[in-house]
Amino acid sequence: MEKKYVIGVDVGGQTAKCGVVDAEGNVVAQEVLVSNETSEAAVFIAELAETLKKLIAKAGVEGKIAGIGVGAPNANYYTGNIEFAPNLTWTLAGSKIIPFAKMLSEAMGGLKVTLTNDANAAALGEMKYGVAKLMKIKDFIMITLGTGVGSGIVINGQLLYGHDGFAGELGHTIVVRENGRQCGCGRKGCLEAYCSAIGVARTAKEWLEESEEPSLLRSKSDITSKDVYDAAKDGDALAKRVFDYTGRLLGTQLADFIAFSAPEAIILFGGLARAKEFLTEPIEKAMNDNVLPLWKNKVKLLYSTLPASDAAILGASALGWE
Amino acid sequence: MEKKYVIGVDVGGQTAKCGVVDAEGNVVAQEVLVSNETSEAAVFIAELAETLKKLIAKAGVEGKIAGIGVGAPNANYYTGNIEFAPNLTWTLAGSKIIPFAKMLSEAMGGLKVTLTNDANAAALGEMKYGVAKLMKIKDFIMITLGTGVGSGIVINGQLLYGHDGFAGELGHTIVVRENGRQCGCGRKGCLEAYCSAIGVARTAKEWLEESEEPSLLRSKSDITSKDVYDAAKDGDALAKRVFDYTGRLLGTQLADFIAFSAPEAIILFGGLARAKEFLTEPIEKAMNDNVLPLWKNKVKLLYSTLPASDAAILGASALGWE
Repeated sequence: MEKKYVIGVDVGGQTAKCGVVDAEGNVVAQEVLVSNETSEAAVFIAELAETLKKLIAKAGVEGKIAGIGVGAPNANYYTGNIEFAPNLTWTLAGSKIIPFAKMLSEAMGGLKVTLTNDANAAALGEMKYGVAKLMKIKDFIMITLGTGVGSGIVINGQLLYGHDGFAGELGHTIVVRENGRQCGCGRKGCLEAYCSAIGVARTAKEWLEESEEPSLLRSKSDITSKDVYDAAKDGDALAKRVFDYTGRLLGTQLADFIAFSAPEAIILFGGLARAKEFLTEPIEKAMNDNVLPLWKNKVKLLYSTLPASDAAILGASALGWE
Repeated sequence: MEKKYVIGVDVGGQTAKCGVVDAEGNVVAQEVLVSNETSEAAVFIAELAETLKKLIAKAGVEGKIAGIGVGAPNANYYTGNIEFAPNLTWTLAGSKIIPFAKMLSEAMGGLKVTLTNDANAAALGEMKYGVAKLMKIKDFIMITLGTGVGSGIVINGQLLYGHDGFAGELGHTIVVRENGRQCGCGRKGCLEAYCSAIGVARTAKEWLEESEEPSLLRSKSDITSKDVYDAAKDGDALAKRVFDYTGRLLGTQLADFIAFSAPEAIILFGGLARAKEFLTEPIEKAMNDNVLPLWKNKVKLLYSTLPASDAAILGASALGWE
């Protein structure tokens, strides 16, 4: 029998989103599972397998699954391991190296499981179902602007994994060299420390402390990037400058990324990318001001076209066809 | 008849080095041609074709040439053009876009001509004949430290060309963001402005002007990177610090390059790379201090093993086999 469906699993720090996806990219059934209630990888994987089996039954696609694709932080495509993921709680016999693909495959009766990090999964989704497919773009850099900053680099239609499977950690290239902000990775000045949702909130908090400038944000107790966005929409000058600053830093760094792989487009994705009305102009200006003349005004800046609710599942599921 | 030889041509601003190369990477005949005596591309290409024909006759390999590979600044693999090369004097009907591959192929009776930029050619040479071949390294970044800073990025044994053929302009990523030095490309703070032979000489000159510190370099009228190297060998403290500074900047930037393509090794090549006794330690330290923890002390720093006199010809010739 022809295998006409795949399963996509997007593992995050709080939840795992699972879906059955058909060849056209329709999520025909989906489920959300809590991911931080156990500290045992084996327990979580058993629960995940149960959920997936129920999902397959619910969709009526028993025996028709070509494979399972999993997107997870710190996941390695080559080894199928999740290694030292700071935002995932589980261990396996005390170790933070989890052979996730192997364990899930065994729990699913031998179904093929392929793993990659969440940003790579997003890039795959864009390529198979999203704007890259639509525009026939085969060379692009996907930047995910979420809690952190991730990236997936696509070269001639292939994801770049590198020698060890960890290529594309562009969120941890250095954007501020002097007195850079502390990053969660232990170093200073990383792109992620500025251009993530957390980075935007930090910038706003720092600026509010440094001045007496009136701002709608002063009424908030613990500012989030969503608060900054809402304030900017309400015309708050400081909030708008925060996005301008964030966009300029990102655009400056994108210019260096372009010098590396000469992509046709940069594609932005993730919660923070929803602030595109405030980000696009400073990103494009900084990118084109800083790029080599040969690429000036030539590299497209695009936003993911996948529905936010399905994007993570779709991206992960794209691996299931491999 | 089996085609057992290729021709490699390395086009530079002053000379073009040409050689006939066998399958084992021996340069069996070679010739050097002046490249800046004419402003007409057609004239230079006619002279080059004459030289190559004589070389083929001299080596006794008529009819045995599989192809011609050309390494040149601003050369594009996809189009076969040399476009807007600032260091090359020729134009074609007033244009700085020269369809070099097509013109040379016609002048050579239809022999296949393949073009790439000089740093990519160096990477190909390393892969086919050099240290990458020896150590079976398929993911590496070649950095050429010459008059400028070039790069060739190899991913899974393939050169990265990107969407437009111009990928790998790592010499023009920004290493000094605040008050960066003017670069020949028109922007400021580029790696090339600091870590090239010219950059080393500039650093030395700036530091000599800024202080009264005694230095062997004070006796020189127009300091070159070779002078700085000689002074460092003679124990000159300022000259040694120039290399230390150069190496640190390069190592810092290499850390970001690693986050992009996760290479197994960085391979250094070019005139300035001969100063490795002064460069290796600061490069490695800065690279490992600045890289994400997962790559700390894992990425090899290697130097080209190709004989300097043949390397450019060998690299270009590797394209001739394609």
